[in-house]
Amino acid sequence: MREVLKLFKGDIYHTPKFGKHEIIENGYIAVKNGQVLGVYKEVPKEHNMAELIDHSGKLIIPGFIDTHFHAPQFTNRGLGLDKELLPWLETYTFPEEAKYENIKYAKKAYEKVIIELWRQGTTRSVLFGTIHREATELLMEMLDKSGLGAMVGKVNMDRNAPEFYHETTQESLNETRKWLENTKDRYERVKPIITPRFVPTCTPELLSGLGAIAKEFNVKIQSHLSENKGEIAWVSELEPTAKHYADVYNTHGLFGDQPTIQAHCIWNTKEELELMKEKKIMVAHSPHSNNNLSSGIAPIRKLVDMGIPVGLASDISGGHDVSIAKAIVSASQVAKLRWVYLDDSNKPLSTSEWFYIATKGGGQFFGDNIGSFEKGNEFDALIIDDSNIADINPRDVMERVERYIYVGDDRNIVERYVSGNKLDKPNFN
Amino acid sequence: MREVLKLFKGDIYHTPKFGKHEIIENGYIAVKNGQVLGVYKEVPKEHNMAELIDHSGKLIIPGFIDTHFHAPQFTNRGLGLDKELLPWLETYTFPEEAKYENIKYAKKAYEKVIIELWRQGTTRSVLFGTIHREATELLMEMLDKSGLGAMVGKVNMDRNAPEFYHETTQESLNETRKWLENTKDRYERVKPIITPRFVPTCTPELLSGLGAIAKEFNVKIQSHLSENKGEIAWVSELEPTAKHYADVYNTHGLFGDQPTIQAHCIWNTKEELELMKEKKIMVAHSPHSNNNLSSGIAPIRKLVDMGIPVGLASDISGGHDVSIAKAIVSASQVAKLRWVYLDDSNKPLSTSEWFYIATKGGGQFFGDNIGSFEKGNEFDALIIDDSNIADINPRDVMERVERYIYVGDDRNIVERYVSGNKLDKPNFN
Repeated sequence: MREVLKLFKGDIYHTPKFGKHEIIENGYIAVKNGQVLGVYKEVPKEHNMAELIDHSGKLIIPGFIDTHFHAPQFTNRGLGLDKELLPWLETYTFPEEAKYENIKYAKKAYEKVIIELWRQGTTRSVLFGTIHREATELLMEMLDKSGLGAMVGKVNMDRNAPEFYHETTQESLNETRKWLENTKDRYERVKPIITPRFVPTCTPELLSGLGAIAKEFNVKIQSHLSENKGEIAWVSELEPTAKHYADVYNTHGLFGDQPTIQAHCIWNTKEELELMKEKKIMVAHSPHSNNNLSSGIAPIRKLVDMGIPVGLASDISGGHDVSIAKAIVSASQVAKLRWVYLDDSNKPLSTSEWFYIATKGGGQFFGDNIGSFEKGNEFDALIIDDSNIADINPRDVMERVERYIYVGDDRNIVERYVSGNKLDKPNFN
Repeated sequence: MREVLKLFKGDIYHTPKFGKHEIIENGYIAVKNGQVLGVYKEVPKEHNMAELIDHSGKLIIPGFIDTHFHAPQFTNRGLGLDKELLPWLETYTFPEEAKYENIKYAKKAYEKVIIELWRQGTTRSVLFGTIHREATELLMEMLDKSGLGAMVGKVNMDRNAPEFYHETTQESLNETRKWLENTKDRYERVKPIITPRFVPTCTPELLSGLGAIAKEFNVKIQSHLSENKGEIAWVSELEPTAKHYADVYNTHGLFGDQPTIQAHCIWNTKEELELMKEKKIMVAHSPHSNNNLSSGIAPIRKLVDMGIPVGLASDISGGHDVSIAKAIVSASQVAKLRWVYLDDSNKPLSTSEWFYIATKGGGQFFGDNIGSFEKGNEFDALIIDDSNIADINPRDVMERVERYIYVGDDRNIVERYVSGNKLDKPNFN
C-alpha cells in the first residue's frame, strides 16, 4: 500500500551532528512510508498535495532513545536508594526480578513499563529483562503491540546469584538459544540482544558460550562495565588473569565483535578506553543511577573527544526517572561537577550536545537512520505543546527546547510517532 | 470565633527531629485553630465529636519549606544554564529583574510564581524580590491573599550593577525603610526580610545602613555566601581588609545579629564555618542551582555535624525546579558524589534526614512551631494521593514517601494546608 505523503508543520528542532543543531521555526517535515523526505522552511511545490498535520506553535523534536533500562526493576523505582550497587542488588533487585518467573506477574508489571516509556516519549529503548525466557518473550510481544522500538535481553547469570534467582550454565545457554530462535526475526522493531548481566554473575564458560551465540545469530550485545569501585575490585578477584574488566568481555567475544552497549563506564583505565574506541563500544550514560547508587561521574567529554559513541539512559531502577529529557538535565549537572572538581580540561557539554546524545547518539545503536530528521531517516518524533511552561516573554525555539528539557514533563508531549506511526497509549486488555 | 476541632485521617509521615521520623499508618492528626493538638493511632475519647477529614490511603506530610527563591527570575527558569554565576547574572538575570519597575509586568509574572509555589506544595518560602519597592510590596500583598507563608526581600544593590538596574546608596536605604514601615506588621504570615544581594553589589556604606535598619526594625536578614570561586575572589578584591567573605557581612551587623539565612555556602573556610556556627546562620542549600551554575557541592553533613542549621532551596532560577521534593533528590545525589570524590568521612544523608531539612530544618527560620506535626505546631500539610505511582506490590509508608519524593510530582498533591487553612489555587483576577 502506497502511503500518502504527510507534512508535519511546527517549530522543528533536531541535532543531525554532535554540536550542530538545526532549528526551523514554523517549518515542515515531509514524511512518506514512515520516513523523512525532507525538512523545509517553505513547502516545496512537489509536496503541495500532501496531507498537512498542523502543529503550528508546537515543537517537533525527535523521540528520545534510552540505551539502558531494566524493565523488571520498574516496580522498584524510587526505592532503596540509600544503598550502593552491590547491597542494593541483593536487597532490592534480585528478589524483585525473581518474581518474573510468574508470567501473570510479568504481564501486569510490564504493562506499566511500556505505558511509561510511551508517556515519557522514549520511542526506542534497550532493555534488560530477567533470566526468564517466557517473560522476556512476553515483554517483546507487548512492546511490538505498542509500536515502540526496542532491543530486549534475556539476562544470563550462572554464579554469585541467590538460590531463588539463578541458572546453570547449560540452562542459560539453552534458553538463550531457544529465545533467539523464537524472536530473532519475529518483529519489525523489537529485537533480541545478548545480555550477560555482568562479569561477577557470569562464569567464563557462560560468557564464551554467549559470545559464540551472538556471532552465530548475528545479534547485538549489552552488559555493564566499571560502574562502581567495589564491583571492579570484585571482578579482578574473580578473573585474576584478565588485563582489566573490559578484557573479560573481550576475551569471550562480547566486546564489539557484534555491536555492543556497555552501561556506566565510569572508572575505565586508559587501556580499556583505547579498547572501547577500537571496538566501537557504545557507552550508556546513566547519570541519575550513577548518582543514586554513589557510583561516580562518567567522563563523557573525554569519551566523545576520543570518538567513543555515547547514548543516554534512565537505568531504571538505579535511576528513578524514565524521562530522557531529565537524564539530559542530570548529565549536564554532573558533567559540570566533574569539571569543577575533577578535570577542568574537559568542558561540560552544551544542551544541544546533550540533546544529540539523547536522540541521535543513542539512536545510532538502532541504525544510522534513527534519532534525527535527516532525509531517509525513520520519522520518530514527539509533538511538544509547551504553552503551560511559557512565560510572559517571547522565547525562541532553542530557549523553548531548553525549558521543555529542564521544566517540562510528560504532560507536554501531545503526540508520539515511531517510523511515522502515531502511537496511542498502549492498551493490553 | 471558636474553630471546630478537626481530625485528619491518613498515613502520616513527619520528622520531628533530624534523623528521627514518625510514621503512623492509618492515623489521625487533631487540629484546632490551625494548630496541631496531637497525632494518634486511635482517636482519643475527648476527640470523639471532632469533624473527620478522611484521607484514608493517602499520605499526610508537612508542607515543604523553600529557604531561597528569586521570585522575579521565575520567568527565566530553565534558561541560560550553560553559563557560570557571574556571566549568567549579567546576561539573563539583571535584564529580567529590571523589568519589575513596571508594576503590571510584576503582577503578571508574580501570579505565576505564587501559583507554582502552591502547585508544588511549598507552604512557606523565603524570597528575593527586585530592587523595586512597589513590586516587592505587591508580591507580599499577593502572597498574603494566596494564604501561603513567606518572607520577602526588597533587594539592595548600589555597586557593580548595570545602569538600567541600580540604586544609589541613599535611595536604597530610604526605600528599604519606607518598605519596612509599609509592610512590617501588615500581614500575618508574610513578612519583610532585609536582602542585600551579595557583597559584590553592595558598598560598605549600604551594608552598614542595612545592618542598622535590620536591628531598628527587628527584622531577619538574607543574602548569598561563597557560591562560586570567581565570586569569592572578587569579594576579596573588593574588600581586601576583611578576614573572609562572611566577615564583610558580620562587620556590618548582617550576620546573625538578627536571624540570618545565607544561600549556598559551598566554599567556606574553617574560620567562616566557626563564625556561622556561633552566629546560628542558616544555610539555604540549593543543589540544583549549584549544579546548573557549576558552583560546587556544599558540605551538608559537615554543617549538620557542627550544629549549623540547614534548609533546602530551589534557588529559582539558578535552580530550574520549584519542587522541594526534587531538591531532596538532588541534594541526596550530590552528597553521594561528594562522599565518593571529596570526603569519605562525611556520610551522605538518608532520605529521612533530607526530609527533615526540607521541612522542619528550613521551617525553623519561621519559628520552632513550623515543619512537623508536633503538638502546638502550625498545621502546614500536604495530602498526597500516590495511587498513580504505586506498583503491583504492597509498600509501607516509608517506601511510599520515598517514591513520592523520587518519582511523584504536583499531580500527587491533592490538598495543601497552611496554619490549618485549606488553600485553593491562587486566583488574582
